[in-house]
Amino acid sequence: MHATPGYSAEKQQVIARLKRIEGQVRGLQRLIDEDTYCIDVLTQVAAVSKALQGVGLHLLDEHLQHCVAGAAASGDTDRTTELVHEATKAVERLLRA
Amino acid sequence: MHATPGYSAEKQQVIARLKRIEGQVRGLQRLIDEDTYCIDVLTQVAAVSKALQGVGLHLLDEHLQHCVAGAAASGDTDRTTELVHEATKAVERLLRA
Amino acid sequence: MHATPGYSAEKQQVIARLKRIEGQVRGLQRLIDEDTYCIDVLTQVAAVSKALQGVGLHLLDEHLQHCVAGAAASGDTDRTTELVHEATKAVERLLRA
Amino acid sequence: MHATPGYSAEKQQVIARLKRIEGQVRGLQRLIDEDTYCIDVLTQVAAVSKALQGVGLHLLDEHLQHCVAGAAASGDTDRTTELVHEATKAVERLLRA
Repeated sequence: MHATPGYSAEKQQVIARLKRIEGQVRGLQRLIDEDTYCIDVLTQVAAVSKALQGVGLHLLDEHLQHCVAGAAASGDTDRTTELVHEATKAVERLLRA
Repeated sequence: MHATPGYSAEKQQVIARLKRIEGQVRGLQRLIDEDTYCIDVLTQVAAVSKALQGVGLHLLDEHLQHCVAGAAASGDTDRTTELVHEATKAVERLLRA
Repeated sequence: MHATPGYSAEKQQVIARLKRIEGQVRGLQRLIDEDTYCIDVLTQVAAVSKALQGVGLHLLDEHLQHCVAGAAASGDTDRTTELVHEATKAVERLLRA
Repeated sequence: MHATPGYSAEKQQVIARLKRIEGQVRGLQRLIDEDTYCIDVLTQVAAVSKALQGVGLHLLDEHLQHCVAGAAASGDTDRTTELVHEATKAVERLLRA
């Protein structure tokens, strides 16, 4: 149905961003292990969270650009409506996360 | 350029939702005036915030449905790309709010 | 139990902030009524949401300052633990809103 | 000044939670690598983000419990006020993340 996701052309960049976030999560473990002051750990938690949301926003942009706009361009309005609702629900999950 | 916004068909429902939120904000003032326990006020602040985000998500859905999908259906890919970026940035502002 | 909430000394300022937010919500209704472009309405929704969270953060600060620190200063550690959990849960509701 | 952070007694559990989150971030890379549908990746991004905020809330709770309540119990009201403002600002960064 959706063989090629919107982010396909730049898979490697998205994976690279996630690898950096993985490194940041390992950094958080080190901060805890070294008894870093709670507030400094929390500041870093917020930074990792922001980086993760950044990847989410990027995936959303690519999805709207390719999948949603693609359905609209093909003239399939029912499918477009369905995809838009699905995307809005995904945004809601990001907001509630 | 965008004479009719995506929410036009149901302006009255959106305004009705905002009127309810306005009433909730007045309710918050009453809670403060009556010296309600801080945590109970905070719970209500979260509820109003959620209601407001709900209106935001609804407007986003209508915008994607009408404006963004409309540009895609018309075959104007540059305009579509531009509108998608603009919508993603609006989502980012909601996330950071 | 908690006759005087933490925000008591400056009730009027909190109410004034909420009155401004109430005005902003009325402003949103006007934007919708005047067919303002969806994205501009969303930007304003994010601004109102931020203002509301600002009041929430202020109430949280006062609550920690007066109620939670008060329990701690009185040496009642069980009550302090209970109040801290309650405050953390309130923060969680703000995050999820 | 704060030699022993609030989370010290259970450092290992916090690190274990972060290790699970690290695994989830690696899982996200695999999803991207396998061309998983954008919305399914986004759902997982929201889940990881929620898990991370959960660690943040836990650290906040421990910090209020130990550091902030400790300052209050010692009768140092200036230090308590300072620590509360610092904690509230940390919550704000989590909210804006």
